Amino acid sequence: MNHPLYSASVPVFQQMLGALDKILAKTEKHVADRKIEPDALLQARLFPDMFPFMRQVQIACDFGKSVPTRLAAIDVPSYEDNERTFADLHARIAKTLAFARGVDAAKFAGCEQREIVLRPGTPRERHFAGGESYLLSYGLPQFFFHLTTAYALLRHNGVELGKKDYMGES
Amino acid sequence: MNHPLYSASVPVFQQMLGALDKILAKTEKHVADRKIEPDALLQARLFPDMFPFMRQVQIACDFGKSVPTRLAAIDVPSYEDNERTFADLHARIAKTLAFARGVDAAKFAGCEQREIVLRPGTPRERHFAGGESYLLSYGLPQFFFHLTTAYALLRHNGVELGKKDYMGES
Repeated sequence: MNHPLYSASVPVFQQMLGALDKILAKTEKHVADRKIEPDALLQARLFPDMFPFMRQVQIACDFGKSVPTRLAAIDVPSYEDNERTFADLHARIAKTLAFARGVDAAKFAGCEQREIVLRPGTPRERHFAGGESYLLSYGLPQFFFHLTTAYALLRHNGVELGKKDYMGES
Repeated sequence: MNHPLYSASVPVFQQMLGALDKILAKTEKHVADRKIEPDALLQARLFPDMFPFMRQVQIACDFGKSVPTRLAAIDVPSYEDNERTFADLHARIAKTLAFARGVDAAKFAGCEQREIVLRPGTPRERHFAGGESYLLSYGLPQFFFHLTTAYALLRHNGVELGKKDYMGES
């Protein structure tokens, strides 16, 4: 049996990012069918000081990658945010999913007692007493925030999606 | 130590619904300061076939209540969806939080092996082999969907909120 914090992170990210990848595919079809300029969606925002769709997807992927690595106490691989197209975002998701799949569940042992420090040495340094509070009070809420905002942006712009697309296959 | 699925549900709902309550208070002030008709926000939608803000809050509360009760195998109290005002939504959140606080963590014992059936006897009946898949592949994604959509609706309508408001205090 896997560590409860493994079960509450890696498979969740896999389900939801897998769903996001299919949402992207539907969105690309929507864009192609209507001859929409892709950036009209990729750069869409719900409000001027919110991140655009593309950035929401990038950040969701970042949490899908960084949360498991912090819980497993392994290095966080750095990805450049250089995506420009739907194809680039598919690749970002695929890279994130492949990485998450490769995280060794055994490395989660003891993570509930391991202090986790975000942005160490900066004014925004933040400490979590253990993996549980890091994942449940921070990592999952952040991940779902960006994932749902990405979905909401597409719905707001008329892409035909439903809750099933968001939920994916568990 | 509490059951891992208690830790991954009740405190998460408490943190996030507590934050939502403060978001509502900021929204009320925004509405009062600008002499906005409250329904302009309460009934706002991101797209015509999506639920309005009020319903998003009601559903987030529903998951905050029903998920712990299903994991603890206790009866789900039924709340009427008869809210009309911001004050009503505060009351709905308060009722949900009080209920969640009262759920006995000890009743989560064994929930990982307990089958959970949603909408039994209906065409949309759905089975989960245990509490873990119910919570992680269904309950949390659903809860965060409605919570984040409520937040996104307010941001889209110009209410001055930030990620910190969404995250609340853990």
